[in-house]
Amino acid sequence: MPSLSPHIAAVPPSGIRRIFEIALELDDVISLAVGEPDRAVAAHILAAGAQAWRDDLTSYSANGGIPPLRAAIVQKLARENGIEVDVERVWVTLGATQGLFQAMRLLLSTGDEVLVPDPGYTTFTMNARLLEAVPVSYSLRPEHGFAPDLDELERLVTDRTRVIIINSPSNPLGVVFDESQLRTLLEFARRHDLWVLSDEVYEYFTYSAPHVSIASLDTDDRVFSVFSLSKTYAMTGARIGYLVTPPGLAAVMRTVQEASISCVGMPDQYAAVAAITGDHQHVADSREHYRANLEAACALLDSRGIRYQRPGGAFYLWVDVSHSSGGDVAAWAEHFLLHDRVAVAPGSAFGRSGEGWIRVSLAADQAVLLEGLGRLPAP
Amino acid sequence: MPSLSPHIAAVPPSGIRRIFEIALELDDVISLAVGEPDRAVAAHILAAGAQAWRDDLTSYSANGGIPPLRAAIVQKLARENGIEVDVERVWVTLGATQGLFQAMRLLLSTGDEVLVPDPGYTTFTMNARLLEAVPVSYSLRPEHGFAPDLDELERLVTDRTRVIIINSPSNPLGVVFDESQLRTLLEFARRHDLWVLSDEVYEYFTYSAPHVSIASLDTDDRVFSVFSLSKTYAMTGARIGYLVTPPGLAAVMRTVQEASISCVGMPDQYAAVAAITGDHQHVADSREHYRANLEAACALLDSRGIRYQRPGGAFYLWVDVSHSSGGDVAAWAEHFLLHDRVAVAPGSAFGRSGEGWIRVSLAADQAVLLEGLGRLPAP
Repeated sequence: MPSLSPHIAAVPPSGIRRIFEIALELDDVISLAVGEPDRAVAAHILAAGAQAWRDDLTSYSANGGIPPLRAAIVQKLARENGIEVDVERVWVTLGATQGLFQAMRLLLSTGDEVLVPDPGYTTFTMNARLLEAVPVSYSLRPEHGFAPDLDELERLVTDRTRVIIINSPSNPLGVVFDESQLRTLLEFARRHDLWVLSDEVYEYFTYSAPHVSIASLDTDDRVFSVFSLSKTYAMTGARIGYLVTPPGLAAVMRTVQEASISCVGMPDQYAAVAAITGDHQHVADSREHYRANLEAACALLDSRGIRYQRPGGAFYLWVDVSHSSGGDVAAWAEHFLLHDRVAVAPGSAFGRSGEGWIRVSLAADQAVLLEGLGRLPAP
Repeated sequence: MPSLSPHIAAVPPSGIRRIFEIALELDDVISLAVGEPDRAVAAHILAAGAQAWRDDLTSYSANGGIPPLRAAIVQKLARENGIEVDVERVWVTLGATQGLFQAMRLLLSTGDEVLVPDPGYTTFTMNARLLEAVPVSYSLRPEHGFAPDLDELERLVTDRTRVIIINSPSNPLGVVFDESQLRTLLEFARRHDLWVLSDEVYEYFTYSAPHVSIASLDTDDRVFSVFSLSKTYAMTGARIGYLVTPPGLAAVMRTVQEASISCVGMPDQYAAVAAITGDHQHVADSREHYRANLEAACALLDSRGIRYQRPGGAFYLWVDVSHSSGGDVAAWAEHFLLHDRVAVAPGSAFGRSGEGWIRVSLAADQAVLLEGLGRLPAP
């Protein structure tokens, strides 16, 4: 056997997926590790997916997606996000994951640097390495209210820096950046002529401040935005997301989509049309479910004296287990899964600053969630 | 706006997709450009896809696919291809397209060279460029019976050559390599310690010699094989393919799948289980349909004195229009579409040697196919 491309060895495995795949093999696990909504998909979405199969809508679509889906997304972006785009700036992707990868592929060459949040979603770092680029972590620290520290960002920029990734509501912290913070980040990007890649997959789940899309503040076409139907409509396995690009990139997007995936599944796209254009009461219900779980979880952790960060959005709780994890929270989480039968994501999967922390998904039946949290060791 | 990564400009657009996307905008087109089977999907496959949606099977799957699908693929590989693998060597991908991309991502670094057939499937070249690698064309010429010329291959190898891509039954030529040719190619790869990446998406459609999988001849773990359900079961838009890797790569495959796509759509995977494990009479019927179309098309072209290559597999006809195309068959095909309302793929989309040729898909209603071919200019 010849050898693999050497940069592949530099791609870190996902510390979340590792726990998830172990948990898949076990029977009696309380699953709080992955971002998998516990809500049923709304009936009108399921019906649309089933109908597309019955109607044999199983042909190649255009690289950017079926026209009704792209049109629905254009309207949603204007209505919900304040982003006015024509349809050629909207590209249906295999979840946000492939949208992120595609955007990074367009923007990063070998050796280029990309600023990624720490703690932050594992895929940012993995994708950078997969592209032979260099992820450079910027900190989200309690002493800055988990907002980026501009002084640190300025120190991290080099002549190879090409992109800053922004994630609000953030995973794993649940921090929501307000308009003023986003404007500051945009000015920073402008000052250094960086692209901004904005991951907004938790846009529908905020619990105090409303969600703001940084692309709505963009005045010089430097923002790529990634959205997903996975979390909003609890349809992670339908794999529908979308990438919104600056203008003028349709030809290149067509080419890179054709080369790497051709197009996204057509029945799934029809289900997505139903999701985006259909009744949204179930989304509001999901938000209230996560909010109620958040309150109950915080009360339980408070009563047990376990520290955590209270999120403003998304559906995770960032919990301090450093009193128990002994400096290796990844090993601790694996042991907690095998011994206590609770799957949580080790904080170290999200960057160096996550050591000693875990990410607990609130997307669970409340009794099950509280049972799982009850098994955490108290300080 | 900052600039895109410079290598992106080197990714050639797909000359097939261009015709396809223009044709999508027109009403009265005879569509013979893309590899889209004209057969209905079998009822048991459609039913399985619809049932998966009704059952809300819309969660993340393992990165490699749902267990029943991977198990069904393992059995199919042993039965149909003579490839004995454990389940950890089988990775469900978004069609063959993403499987190809993923394999190339594992094997190619910036500046590495990959040997690609000319004429050959456009994506081989596009993916290489997208990965900052260098596609190096090897010729499939009439004087060699459209088989690779070993002397030429030896001349093309450099110290940067890492992979040879083999495609049998081939697109666009329809050439089927026999076991002896495949053994010769494997020995060539061994001699230079190259990986072999084998694209076998037309495996079920051969018209004389049977299909042979090069991985069944592999003795030292250098073959990656890409398969697809798209052509076999006429379900291109369900986007299910699979990549079969050498042993020992499960951890790295898990990581690269997680980073770039996470996983493939779950309802589509359930439909795929039904396809692979269900009755295959409809596949035999499709083969006879393509064979009958091939005979009728050849008779018509013969009667009109138009030259073509008779394919041994796949469902395309490689037709010489050099008497009419004036050295720019891409422009000619666009004019033929707009003026004569027939969409065909310009041969130049498949490499330099395709200039003056077109690829005509046989996957059409026979009367429509003959009407389209009837509009070709005779010499």
